[in-house]
Amino acid sequence: MDERIRKHAKILVDWSTEIEEGDNVIIRAHPSAYELVLALYNEIGERKAKPITLMSSNEANRAYMLEHGEGFKTPEHLIELVKASDVFISIRGDDNLASMAEVPGSLVSSHALANQPLMDLLSDMRVSLTQFPTASQAQFAGMSLEEYQNFVWNSIIRDWQEVHDMQELLREKLADTDEVCIEGADTELYLSVKGMNPINSDGKHNLPSGEVYVAPVPEKTEGKIYFDLPVVQSGREIHGVKLEFEGGEVVDHSSDSHEELLASILDTDDGARRLGELGIGTNRDINRFTRNMLFDEKMGDTVHLALGFAVPKSVGEGLQGNKSAIHVDIIKDMKKGKMTFDGETIMENGSYFWE
Amino acid sequence: MDERIRKHAKILVDWSTEIEEGDNVIIRAHPSAYELVLALYNEIGERKAKPITLMSSNEANRAYMLEHGEGFKTPEHLIELVKASDVFISIRGDDNLASMAEVPGSLVSSHALANQPLMDLLSDMRVSLTQFPTASQAQFAGMSLEEYQNFVWNSIIRDWQEVHDMQELLREKLADTDEVCIEGADTELYLSVKGMNPINSDGKHNLPSGEVYVAPVPEKTEGKIYFDLPVVQSGREIHGVKLEFEGGEVVDHSSDSHEELLASILDTDDGARRLGELGIGTNRDINRFTRNMLFDEKMGDTVHLALGFAVPKSVGEGLQGNKSAIHVDIIKDMKKGKMTFDGETIMENGSYFWE
Repeated sequence: MDERIRKHAKILVDWSTEIEEGDNVIIRAHPSAYELVLALYNEIGERKAKPITLMSSNEANRAYMLEHGEGFKTPEHLIELVKASDVFISIRGDDNLASMAEVPGSLVSSHALANQPLMDLLSDMRVSLTQFPTASQAQFAGMSLEEYQNFVWNSIIRDWQEVHDMQELLREKLADTDEVCIEGADTELYLSVKGMNPINSDGKHNLPSGEVYVAPVPEKTEGKIYFDLPVVQSGREIHGVKLEFEGGEVVDHSSDSHEELLASILDTDDGARRLGELGIGTNRDINRFTRNMLFDEKMGDTVHLALGFAVPKSVGEGLQGNKSAIHVDIIKDMKKGKMTFDGETIMENGSYFWE
Repeated sequence: MDERIRKHAKILVDWSTEIEEGDNVIIRAHPSAYELVLALYNEIGERKAKPITLMSSNEANRAYMLEHGEGFKTPEHLIELVKASDVFISIRGDDNLASMAEVPGSLVSSHALANQPLMDLLSDMRVSLTQFPTASQAQFAGMSLEEYQNFVWNSIIRDWQEVHDMQELLREKLADTDEVCIEGADTELYLSVKGMNPINSDGKHNLPSGEVYVAPVPEKTEGKIYFDLPVVQSGREIHGVKLEFEGGEVVDHSSDSHEELLASILDTDDGARRLGELGIGTNRDINRFTRNMLFDEKMGDTVHLALGFAVPKSVGEGLQGNKSAIHVDIIKDMKKGKMTFDGETIMENGSYFWE
């Protein structure tokens, strides 16, 4: 076994989910991630906790959903399992990222709705989402498996305490900020984060992480922004997205490709035209775009905005975050750009204020 | 996908576990059996039941047990999962049957003891144990994968209602029998099954099946028996077992190989020297010994006896079956032998009374 798989497992168990003796642990994995499951059983055994593994497979989900059709019910046995558990480790990594291509979106939504009670339960647990480098994901990223393995494990096997401490400087500053300004080519955007609650995403719930994010005040975004990096939606890439905001709402938009898809995202519901997240990526081991949001949004020297719902814990007490059925992140490269907090330069041309 | 995998899944769902709309279903499988899991998701989706799959792996169990050491606790989350479920389909088929070789037997026993509450819950559910033909199991059986696939699916894809009806003739006769006699080379054995409850094993709890079995009266076995087929224990084969009984107890024994292992089995506890089962195999598609008891004991034209505990439901009401920590089946080929029920010939030289 690659030594990095053992290190990956150790970080998941010790740092991300802090597994202790007696914990009831659920692992969720596709058979392609089998080696990471084996390494986790080693680590969890050493800590005298109790693991079980749910096999996940989009190929199985496809078969199930197509045969079943509408009318999904919540799986009570899975609810009882999750209720009795302390830790949930979800490993991404399938053998075919196109397995669901044939399944109508409406069916996927109905299935997700039936499983919503499970998602609600997970919010009270120690949960971590991570990636195992499979051939299919390497292919999707446009890399050989070996190159992709290096990429994934370089971004995961880090000193997360150090990342936490560094990001804490950023989080504290953001918590004291009223107005954020992002500047660059075709970009001059003002957001208010006054009273909101920035989160230090440090390798616990997402592994890899390397991000500080916050919910903007939904009514207070003004100006325009150009995103250098594409949005990947249902396998299609929307390049060169430009958005213009007035009173928090997108009033004009364009893109170099798939303009209709961009329009349909914005038309999803009322909240789809407002921002639910401002995120600042700090993980420089994520040094390229791989069409996988678990990685992309944490790229060093980037910022991203999400159209749609705000993560509740990133909304300040007594305030309202944006509501929507969607949450679509769009990333801007800051190697040629500048971000200020109440006028103080935080990022500029690929360096952070602490550098 | 091999069409036989779909047929296998259909039998499991329709005949073995009779899955209906709304059932909470657990599948348990090693990644090597992935294709059967996919086929099951198809069938279960069609019936609008709710499947989840637990990944089983002896390689993971080995890692866990060795790191954990003694002191296993019952996994509460797994208990809650099983309590809330209706159906349990357990698929045998690993990628390495020697994965547990390094794990001390005492550790395996402690782990099994901690999981006993789970086994107790399973006895109230619709449970089926089946086999997926993996390369490792083919190797263990001494066959190519293709030959082994043919063997497994020939023995599984049958008209089980027809098997049930045929075996019912045997079960009814056995239910009315006091004394069973088995005769052959070095063999003249008398068992009492008076008042006991024979079971028609027809592809529900075991797939494949093809067996009628019953608990003998523990004190009433007399005579001697020679077993043509080997006993496989911890990877070792005990050939040519001969047992002699007085008052239900083994008073003399010998074998052509591993005599000490046979002795240690008989010395496990008081019940290890008495019989817990008489089984009659009827599945002629199981036409060779494959060192896998799920198949071997159902071979057509064989009988088997088990040293050790009796399956409770095969014991007659108000009677006592044998108690022991072990249950070791030993098989006798009846192609040259005879079995009678109260003097009536039931099997003789490879044919049954109904032929």
